[in-house]
Amino acid sequence: MQKILNYISLVDKALKNTASKKEPTALYEPIAYTLNLGGKRIRPALLLLANDLFGGKDEIALNSALAIEVFHNFTLVHDDIMDQAPLRRGQQSVYKKWNTNVAILSGDVMLIQAIQLLNKDNNSSLSEVLEVFNTSAVQVCEGQQFDMDFENSTTVSIDDYLTMIELKTAVLLGCSLKIGAILGNAQKEDADHIYEFGKNLGIAFQLMDDVLDLYGDPKKVGKRTGGDVISNKKTYLLLKAQELATGKTAKDLDFCLTSTVLDDKTKVEKVTAIFNELKIKQLTIDEMNLFYNTAISHLDSVDAPTEKKQVFENFAKSLMNREN
Amino acid sequence: MQKILNYISLVDKALKNTASKKEPTALYEPIAYTLNLGGKRIRPALLLLANDLFGGKDEIALNSALAIEVFHNFTLVHDDIMDQAPLRRGQQSVYKKWNTNVAILSGDVMLIQAIQLLNKDNNSSLSEVLEVFNTSAVQVCEGQQFDMDFENSTTVSIDDYLTMIELKTAVLLGCSLKIGAILGNAQKEDADHIYEFGKNLGIAFQLMDDVLDLYGDPKKVGKRTGGDVISNKKTYLLLKAQELATGKTAKDLDFCLTSTVLDDKTKVEKVTAIFNELKIKQLTIDEMNLFYNTAISHLDSVDAPTEKKQVFENFAKSLMNREN
Repeated sequence: MQKILNYISLVDKALKNTASKKEPTALYEPIAYTLNLGGKRIRPALLLLANDLFGGKDEIALNSALAIEVFHNFTLVHDDIMDQAPLRRGQQSVYKKWNTNVAILSGDVMLIQAIQLLNKDNNSSLSEVLEVFNTSAVQVCEGQQFDMDFENSTTVSIDDYLTMIELKTAVLLGCSLKIGAILGNAQKEDADHIYEFGKNLGIAFQLMDDVLDLYGDPKKVGKRTGGDVISNKKTYLLLKAQELATGKTAKDLDFCLTSTVLDDKTKVEKVTAIFNELKIKQLTIDEMNLFYNTAISHLDSVDAPTEKKQVFENFAKSLMNREN
Repeated sequence: MQKILNYISLVDKALKNTASKKEPTALYEPIAYTLNLGGKRIRPALLLLANDLFGGKDEIALNSALAIEVFHNFTLVHDDIMDQAPLRRGQQSVYKKWNTNVAILSGDVMLIQAIQLLNKDNNSSLSEVLEVFNTSAVQVCEGQQFDMDFENSTTVSIDDYLTMIELKTAVLLGCSLKIGAILGNAQKEDADHIYEFGKNLGIAFQLMDDVLDLYGDPKKVGKRTGGDVISNKKTYLLLKAQELATGKTAKDLDFCLTSTVLDDKTKVEKVTAIFNELKIKQLTIDEMNLFYNTAISHLDSVDAPTEKKQVFENFAKSLMNREN
């Protein structure tokens, strides 16, 4: 894991330099603010790691790694407007600290800056890198739209949900790894395998998120247990329960979702009891393991030194065994 | 002008095919709607014309021309949110017809689609084209921010205003022409001259807009005369008047701008009288001619066949002598 930590630190330093202040300040201050809010920097670290996996030097991939992180932060700035989220990483979100217009426009500039960073190394793979990036970037927006559509839909299926988290979250992990692979001059097959590793790991990661929201230790997760249940969020857990519940169980679940008299604590207790009856936690973990195993089998297929691939597997394991 | 009309028709047809509907419809319908609202298609036509000027074939530049038009429409979709403009080209703007979230996200996708279109021809100039595009794209956003900043500022100078319209409007004309030139394999000097031609023409064009808003024939301009005056918009006319007015004239102008008792018609009459006293219309036309002449001198410096350059000069003249 030391290698990943080194990459994260490299990215953090470089981002500080990227976010230099310029005129008009109303446009550039929010960008610097956003990029300095922190974040796990998982995507750029994975990009650099994939580049290294195929023997690429860090220098040729650093700007592309920054591009992915700037793009990711652009999506957060715009998502926070759309989701009316007042907080981001414990601080005020851009639209809340400034206003919606500032958040729209500074987000737009960040998206363009991401393309500028991809273009900085100006190498022979530029067109290929851009194609992977653009495809994923559009998919991330599609995922956000599906997510918003789902809020007002009563017919979301498990497949719809898996497609949504694939687009909104998972493809950008795959994209980061694939761009790293391309810059490291990987064979096309290997670049595709590492993409699939990232995408499937991303879906598994999101399913783990759903489990932790209800079954995680609130002290470790850092937020109250059952937030998704309280807000009727259409997670894998809920959709699976709605798929499986029949008779009285289905009626009870429906009551919990529509009742205006249940207090939050009772609602979480009742829904948890229904989930437990239907073995929802285990079924979600089973589904998660399917994606995790698919991810690992793609990693196995990559033609690269085993000890280097071990870093990816350890990282994947740490994401699955996390408690927050 | 026939050549330009042919290009406009070519772009219109190609855009119809670009805006094919996909899922999620809440994301793609607004894009198709926007691209089918019409518009003069000046930017893509200029790109194709510049490419042709240096002997490039239309096919190699068409996707880049579409990219510029899609980008331009992206800025309109987001600007309409920020400016709370309910109408665009006589129809409901996207944020009004759908909602702000839809306008943000479909705009984001259009920006990415513009990059996809630039990448489609996948030629050896990609990096160079992207650099010109990205620089201008950021500048357009900076121009929009300055424009919004100016609304609440009491210290906007003529120079600030000229910088704002250069960024918000003019650089994208220069950018379109320069990308066409690069794709047509122009010499660097010639590409720079055609950029400066477009940029200076764009500034002249915007100054003409300011004049027409007050002095144009309302039947031909298609909106009521003096809209800028009524809304106290900081145009070249107003800023120049504020710069020149002294004594009683300055007081009268200030009264018109701050009075809450003047009806619109009287306000326009009074401000027009002050402008006439200060010869503001002529001074603005003089300034416009400076930029126009700079544009033409850059066109003259381009090393290309005179008869082809004549098309650009005729087009420039038609923009200056327009009545709407």
